[in-house]
Amino acid sequence: MDTSIASAVREVIGESGYGGLTVDAVAARAGVSKAAIYRRFSSKQEMTFAVLLHDVDQQSPADTGSLRGDLVALIEQITAHLVSPGAGTLSGLLADVRADPNLHARFDSTFLAVERAIITEVVDRAIERGEVANRPDPTVVHALILGPLFAWLIVLDEGTAGVPALIELVATTAADALTRDLLPAATP
Amino acid sequence: MDTSIASAVREVIGESGYGGLTVDAVAARAGVSKAAIYRRFSSKQEMTFAVLLHDVDQQSPADTGSLRGDLVALIEQITAHLVSPGAGTLSGLLADVRADPNLHARFDSTFLAVERAIITEVVDRAIERGEVANRPDPTVVHALILGPLFAWLIVLDEGTAGVPALIELVATTAADALTRDLLPAATP
Repeated sequence: MDTSIASAVREVIGESGYGGLTVDAVAARAGVSKAAIYRRFSSKQEMTFAVLLHDVDQQSPADTGSLRGDLVALIEQITAHLVSPGAGTLSGLLADVRADPNLHARFDSTFLAVERAIITEVVDRAIERGEVANRPDPTVVHALILGPLFAWLIVLDEGTAGVPALIELVATTAADALTRDLLPAATP
Repeated sequence: MDTSIASAVREVIGESGYGGLTVDAVAARAGVSKAAIYRRFSSKQEMTFAVLLHDVDQQSPADTGSLRGDLVALIEQITAHLVSPGAGTLSGLLADVRADPNLHARFDSTFLAVERAIITEVVDRAIERGEVANRPDPTVVHALILGPLFAWLIVLDEGTAGVPALIELVATTAADALTRDLLPAATP
C-alpha cells in the first residue's frame, strides 16, 4: 500500500502541482480510503514529507581520490534531490515544513542529519589525504554547497541548463575554502 | 491607506505567522474594508508581495575601495532582506510566488532585477579597479552570494548567530572566484 500511495503522491503533483495535492486526490488515485491514508500519516504535509524527503536514499559518493572530485559528486547528488520533486513542490514543502515545528524537527533529524554525516565523511577523507587540516562545521559546508544550487533552481528559477557549470564552480570554491581552512571548526 | 495596510500586514504576520495572514485580518487591523484592499491588490499574495518585497528600497552599497569589502556590504544588505520578514514568512511567500506565474514574473522583473543591477555595479567597480578582468553573469554571482545565506537561514534554519562569520566567508570565496575569472561570462 505504501508504494501505491507514494506513486499516487508523485502522480498528483505531476498533474496538479503541489497546490493541487490533497489527501482526497491521493486516496482516489491510489484506490484506497482516506482513512487508510490517515492511519499511516497524520496530515497531507506528513504524507508528502515521507514520500518526497524522508524515504530518499542518501549515500556517500564513491571516493574519487580528491576533495574537489568528491564535492562535485556530492553536489550532483544534492542537486538531484532539489530537481526531482520540482521547484514548485519543493518551495511548497519547505513552507509547510517551516510552519510545523514537529515536521521541521523530523526534517532536521532525518534528511538534513544524513546530509551532514555524508559531508563529514567526504571531509574526513580529505583530512586523511592531507588536503584539509581541520574538521570544519559540517553545517557551514552544507550551506556553501547546497545554497547556490538552491538559490539558482528555487529562488531565482534559472532552470537546469546552467547547473553543471554551477556545480563545478561551487565545488571549486568550496574545496578552496576547505583547503585554506577558512571555515569555522566543528564543535567537538 | 497604503501605510496602514503595510503596517497591518507586518503586525498580523508578527502575531499569527504567514499561515495566519488573511485579507480579513489585515482589513480589521488596518481599519479598512476588505473591498478597499481588493481595489488595491488582487489577492492576499499580491498584497504580501507588495508589502514585503516590491516596496523594499534596494540601493548599491557605498564603495568600500575593494571588491571583497563591497561584497560584504552587499551580502549584509541581502541578508537583512532575508531576516526581516522572518524565515517562515519568506518560505511561505516563496511558495506562493512559485505557484503564480504572474507574481513570479513580477518578482523577477522588480526585486531580482534590482539585485542583479546592484551586483553588476559592484563588479564593474572591481573591473575599474583592475581586480576583475571580465564581467561575469550577474545571476551566477547572485546564486553564489545569496545561496549560502538563504540555505543557512531558511532551509537549514540555523539562526542569526553564525551569520556574520558566514557573510565574511561567502564574500571571500566569491571575491576569489571573481578575481580568478572562474565564472561564466555575462551574455552581451
